[in-house]
Amino acid sequence: MFEAAKLGRKVSKEFFKEQEADLRYELLQAQRDLAESGTSVVLLISGVEGAGKGEVVNVLNKWMDTRGVETTAFWDETDEERERPRYWRFWRALPPRGQVGIFFGAWYMDPMVYRMQERCGDADLDDELKRIADYERMLTEDGTLFVKFWLHLPEKEQKKRLKKLKRTDPKRWKMTPRKGEFSEHYEKVERVGERVIRHTDSGYAPWYLIEAGNTHYRDLTVGRTLLSAIRTRLERPARPETTEIYSHAPALPADPKARVTVLDHVDLTQSLERSEYKSRLKKLKKEVNELAWQAYQAKRSCVMVFEGWDAGGKGGAIRRITNSIDSRLYRTLQVAAPTDEEKARHYLWRFWRHIPRAGRASIYDRSWYGRVLVERVEQFAAEPEWRRAYSEINDFEEQLVESGVIMLKFWIHISKEEQLRRFKEREAVPYKKHKITEEDWRNREKWEDYKLAVNEMVVRTSTEYAPWTIVSGDDKLFARIQVLETVCEALKAALKQQNDNRGVAPCRKKALPKTKRG
Amino acid sequence: MFEAAKLGRKVSKEFFKEQEADLRYELLQAQRDLAESGTSVVLLISGVEGAGKGEVVNVLNKWMDTRGVETTAFWDETDEERERPRYWRFWRALPPRGQVGIFFGAWYMDPMVYRMQERCGDADLDDELKRIADYERMLTEDGTLFVKFWLHLPEKEQKKRLKKLKRTDPKRWKMTPRKGEFSEHYEKVERVGERVIRHTDSGYAPWYLIEAGNTHYRDLTVGRTLLSAIRTRLERPARPETTEIYSHAPALPADPKARVTVLDHVDLTQSLERSEYKSRLKKLKKEVNELAWQAYQAKRSCVMVFEGWDAGGKGGAIRRITNSIDSRLYRTLQVAAPTDEEKARHYLWRFWRHIPRAGRASIYDRSWYGRVLVERVEQFAAEPEWRRAYSEINDFEEQLVESGVIMLKFWIHISKEEQLRRFKEREAVPYKKHKITEEDWRNREKWEDYKLAVNEMVVRTSTEYAPWTIVSGDDKLFARIQVLETVCEALKAALKQQNDNRGVAPCRKKALPKTKRG
Repeated sequence: MFEAAKLGRKVSKEFFKEQEADLRYELLQAQRDLAESGTSVVLLISGVEGAGKGEVVNVLNKWMDTRGVETTAFWDETDEERERPRYWRFWRALPPRGQVGIFFGAWYMDPMVYRMQERCGDADLDDELKRIADYERMLTEDGTLFVKFWLHLPEKEQKKRLKKLKRTDPKRWKMTPRKGEFSEHYEKVERVGERVIRHTDSGYAPWYLIEAGNTHYRDLTVGRTLLSAIRTRLERPARPETTEIYSHAPALPADPKARVTVLDHVDLTQSLERSEYKSRLKKLKKEVNELAWQAYQAKRSCVMVFEGWDAGGKGGAIRRITNSIDSRLYRTLQVAAPTDEEKARHYLWRFWRHIPRAGRASIYDRSWYGRVLVERVEQFAAEPEWRRAYSEINDFEEQLVESGVIMLKFWIHISKEEQLRRFKEREAVPYKKHKITEEDWRNREKWEDYKLAVNEMVVRTSTEYAPWTIVSGDDKLFARIQVLETVCEALKAALKQQNDNRGVAPCRKKALPKTKRG
Repeated sequence: MFEAAKLGRKVSKEFFKEQEADLRYELLQAQRDLAESGTSVVLLISGVEGAGKGEVVNVLNKWMDTRGVETTAFWDETDEERERPRYWRFWRALPPRGQVGIFFGAWYMDPMVYRMQERCGDADLDDELKRIADYERMLTEDGTLFVKFWLHLPEKEQKKRLKKLKRTDPKRWKMTPRKGEFSEHYEKVERVGERVIRHTDSGYAPWYLIEAGNTHYRDLTVGRTLLSAIRTRLERPARPETTEIYSHAPALPADPKARVTVLDHVDLTQSLERSEYKSRLKKLKKEVNELAWQAYQAKRSCVMVFEGWDAGGKGGAIRRITNSIDSRLYRTLQVAAPTDEEKARHYLWRFWRHIPRAGRASIYDRSWYGRVLVERVEQFAAEPEWRRAYSEINDFEEQLVESGVIMLKFWIHISKEEQLRRFKEREAVPYKKHKITEEDWRNREKWEDYKLAVNEMVVRTSTEYAPWTIVSGDDKLFARIQVLETVCEALKAALKQQNDNRGVAPCRKKALPKTKRG
């Protein structure tokens, strides 16, 4: 593959100067057009050492208006980043629509380093590359333009350059982290690099192989490629709107309404005597607080998601948990309308940004599942958008669980009759009246549509790492105890696993932990 | 002072139960009203150990709707926080309008701990308390309601409780950071606590002394005090709109237009030959890049602010810097309209959140000075708002400089005639045309108003730690060299100081560095 980048292409200084002025003007113009579009650009730069990745980025920053460009080196991981899933630091660096983010290495860095150091095999690497491909496709579908450059040099040329660099600039050499780590393994870098490129080169996020032997040729080619990629995208803002490729879960029957859903199987007659409720509640409250402290000490986070029918009793169930746990250990998040900073990015961005630090719990009163529930039913999201959300959500939750987060998801289920009873009660009792609105009645009319959506959600997002718990909610007392018991059991199981496994968080991709954790 | 909190007040369990239901209902109601108001609440909780600070906060979280409440313990400082000014972590935790932030200790914690450990004297403590008072007043003026509780216990009672706590809950005792550190110095805690309260108790941010011997009395009193404070504020959203108290700088003459301003003293005839410009530019570019790398290694950040007349050449001057420095080391920020998350907080919040990590540079194309320039002249800010901004800004910059940030502020000055010439040039040259708008012409009509505002800004915010550099801008070449030279000199001076001073960042309040740095 890399032969194509060893052809000795070059351009003269004069030609470069002549072309530079035009290119610069056009890049600025493209940037202005970009700012008005819904497109963000992620420019990713990678390649062999000595090829001048830093130089290229400096030139791009010189050519463009730096007010719409942010460069991230991902040099050192902060402890706030280490205490969260690996991708958190990439999510937080994503540019808003209309702007450009220039990333050094980014999500390609760790997998490559690990593979080169033989700390993982090809299968683990491929597994991670699959995740990367999914990630890039997901953002592409949301309107992000990826432009990925691999700068390459023949081995001889690399050796010459690195020697010169060390001689002329010994101080800087030391300052940049990781410099010089891989220059002695040219072949290995080529081998791993080729595998990485092959697995992650796609129509939506192509790699551009740049011959970096001649700096003028290199810079001009990068600049023109970027310009052309932006121009093409602005002319044809083509999002792949085919839905078939998003369905990873077993298909539902052609007429879904004909099918008995999981919800029909919930035994809604289960109930609890108040006296038994009281004694069990007392015991569980103590237990869950104790477990929350243990999780804090073990640095295990917990994410609890509550979804359910209107008036299903989400709030009451959540309160039984929050009233039990020390308030310094949890945070309750209500999903409100996204802010404008959130609207300027992928819909999962606002959930990523609030992922708790290690040892804390986040309790969601409604969640990212809004995408496949209310946004589906009310048609706030287009069909391809909510259809692809299932696998996006599964991947999101998998990353949480891999990083050690204890994940709990509750659907609090009630019958349509019980909902009516509660609505009427709310309207009758003065201090409950604010809890019932016109919207609740409107939603009720769409019960069947919601039921269909809930069923598909449960089917498609009940994974082995993050299963749904369907709570039988017609009896509030029973529901609250079911929730608390599930929480306690999950915490106990996770903490036991932690003890068995001394410090290693459960992780499918054990071979690719965070660099500094490793 | 604390005698008032040792009177043995108590209420019975029955009375508590009876009152609790009402209080709870009213707190929820107050929270709903709060959400619709422009007021945020900072509930700060402090006091002697064993008084039950955690318990009280848990009760409040139980009574209120936790979706509008966020509790922050400030237990451990992350490295992202350590690499920024001390107050950064408090700013980032501030609740948006309509919500409640419950803070444990917060900005009172470190000063008290330092004083108790005799790591600083009373004078240093008072100095810090002055800053706290200013901080709380500033946020109050912006619509924040402060409710500060000090929970107190007689010495005997404290000893008894701590003994019991250690016995019944030995594990938890160890988990909470800092527990048990000061319980042996009751008198000292009282002495320092009294000083702290006396210096920071004010009409706008009062301390409430709560006797904590009886938990029912304690919780009920805290809840009622909070309720009444919110109710009072919502009924009378009184911001102090007097302007006199904000003027800390020497007064300007009654008729300011009569006065010759600092701008009139700028020698605008200074210029540079292109050949000399080129050779000096080349040298300076190399130097500034070298210095930026040294600053990165020394972990010193740099904040550069660019203000100036329209068409003054800010962009060109900034580009000469960004084209010189490695793009991984700086970030350019353009002040655009605040996002809705930013609008929900004090106007300085959006500048605090972007403070660079140690070793990085931030370059501001326009800045927080908009408050006293465009917002003043165009009357986007009311007079009391921009008047008090001078001291708010001075304090902000002082904190940056104290934490080791190298601070540079440029006003690029041109004559009214030169501006006209450039406006016309922009209109005539096709690729410059987008740089000139109707608004520029409108601003030009207000030249005299702006001149007055600029003069007052320079007079009031040129401090010994962050002076303004007025750049003579009629000749662009001269201006760019002046800017680059000033940057180089400032970096050299700061890095030299650093070397002389091995690791200790210059700090007025040396006695109160960050806990873990100390």
